[in-house]
Amino acid sequence: MFPKKVYIREVGPREGMQIEKKNIATEDKIKIIDMLSECNFPVIEVTSFVSPKWVPQMADAEEVAKGFKRKTGTEYQAVYLNTKGIERAQATEKFDLEGVISITASETFSVKNTNRTIEETLIEMDNRIAVLRENDIPIITLTVMTAFGCNYEGDIDPNHVISLIERALKRAESQDVFVKRILLGDTVGWAKPPSIEHLVGEVQKRWPELDIILHLHDTRGMGIANAYAGLKMGVTHFDSSVGGLGGCPFSGEGAAGNIATEELVHMCHELGIETGIDLDKLLEVTAEIERLLGRKLQGKLLHGGTLESLRKAGSK
Amino acid sequence: MFPKKVYIREVGPREGMQIEKKNIATEDKIKIIDMLSECNFPVIEVTSFVSPKWVPQMADAEEVAKGFKRKTGTEYQAVYLNTKGIERAQATEKFDLEGVISITASETFSVKNTNRTIEETLIEMDNRIAVLRENDIPIITLTVMTAFGCNYEGDIDPNHVISLIERALKRAESQDVFVKRILLGDTVGWAKPPSIEHLVGEVQKRWPELDIILHLHDTRGMGIANAYAGLKMGVTHFDSSVGGLGGCPFSGEGAAGNIATEELVHMCHELGIETGIDLDKLLEVTAEIERLLGRKLQGKLLHGGTLESLRKAGSK
Repeated sequence: MFPKKVYIREVGPREGMQIEKKNIATEDKIKIIDMLSECNFPVIEVTSFVSPKWVPQMADAEEVAKGFKRKTGTEYQAVYLNTKGIERAQATEKFDLEGVISITASETFSVKNTNRTIEETLIEMDNRIAVLRENDIPIITLTVMTAFGCNYEGDIDPNHVISLIERALKRAESQDVFVKRILLGDTVGWAKPPSIEHLVGEVQKRWPELDIILHLHDTRGMGIANAYAGLKMGVTHFDSSVGGLGGCPFSGEGAAGNIATEELVHMCHELGIETGIDLDKLLEVTAEIERLLGRKLQGKLLHGGTLESLRKAGSK
Repeated sequence: MFPKKVYIREVGPREGMQIEKKNIATEDKIKIIDMLSECNFPVIEVTSFVSPKWVPQMADAEEVAKGFKRKTGTEYQAVYLNTKGIERAQATEKFDLEGVISITASETFSVKNTNRTIEETLIEMDNRIAVLRENDIPIITLTVMTAFGCNYEGDIDPNHVISLIERALKRAESQDVFVKRILLGDTVGWAKPPSIEHLVGEVQKRWPELDIILHLHDTRGMGIANAYAGLKMGVTHFDSSVGGLGGCPFSGEGAAGNIATEELVHMCHELGIETGIDLDKLLEVTAEIERLLGRKLQGKLLHGGTLESLRKAGSK
């Protein structure tokens, strides 16, 4: 039922930090990334090569890339939107760029976030694939944003999501692209455990050969319960951010961000599921970020302490 | 599988506030209690008639009792340890006092928290029952503290908990006391969904006629996942605190408190489970407490917004 091992992608340095209003010094970002590397994440999302006009916090992407130390065993990813972003990222020679094709289940969210309707996104996919190929980037993941619901359109019908995935996969296959993973994104925190169970179950039934990545937000406090539901369904890949850093430009001011990595890791370990991640070191990163930002983060584990550390203290 | 309706006891004014270091003005406490009454809770734990030496924040119990307005349909509870506390509470004529007999599953925690071993607690139970009877307080609940684990002793064996419950119930029955409910307290946040499922299942199997109350803390971010596990097992009674107010003197400084009532209510409503509670009004209480305390509380829903409000806004 539970997977033996899960793979957690740490998205704090990019998705988490990009929404921070206070500018975080480049050297602090580098320090955090290097500390995260010491925790043995399989994947860290480091930065974003996009226009600093839209995401000012990521304006130092090149310097961050130059500064952080790659560690063997960890993949370092960066976000890019177009050829220019790819070229900037590739020029740094620090990334394991992954090709993502992306659709959004909510039409309104799609237009607001990407300036394209769902139909336009599907058509544009051919260009996206061509650009990724030209730049020798392996196309690994089909991402579905707002897969469970959206603040503009409310609950999203899972049948609509399944048919969208079907269309996107077919379109990719017609170009000889066969992804390995489907990312189900609860972009603005609409999922609940039964909807996770249902959509994950449907995707597993139809595409048993593909891995599922759950990208969960804790906007309404149900994120860890949703992750638990995913684990029970055998999901092996999760996105999360250290401390629960982040938020969402499409949620309210002060809304919680991604699920907190340390809470996810802690729960996995308590359930006997391997993550390969050094949880004590990860809590040091959380503490460091709280010092840097001068506030308590959403993740509760830092101040509660891990059960494993309490067990060890008790047995002394 | 899910219950049709759950009964949530709001413990914020007592268990939540008692750990606040900053003194909360009596009139502010009264205001919060009255606002909570407007949310239609079946039960509110209002205050504690204990020594102000031990719990300074509750020194104004009489004034709080005098000030708040009782609302039809809500039971108002107060905590007391001994005859003196009962007399103080009864003198105010504002409470629906409930008789609780209490045991602690962890021997070390029992001694540190109550100055009695488990065996001494069981023997003392006869006196407790006598005192409650003398004061005409109906004995409703058997409380088991640290039912899942404890920072001193680590994980607690569920078989030990079951046998303790058995002994406590027998001892009570020998005095013609038949409780209606068993409260399983995850006092310092050691539960995880499978341990909830296991212990709740065992209690249901042995004592199907008794209701279970889950008293959950969110010390390590698993509280709502644990509540979900309880709901799936059909648990109908929960304790929680508005905003996730509180903490625990036996957890670390800054550790999270009880599960946040608004997150529990929101999850129930999203699962189609009735609570009778007005969630929008409850979020006004959370906002008011954030203003009073001058800090963001642990509960995330206030800043994320309810899905129901977003659905309504979207359909306009």
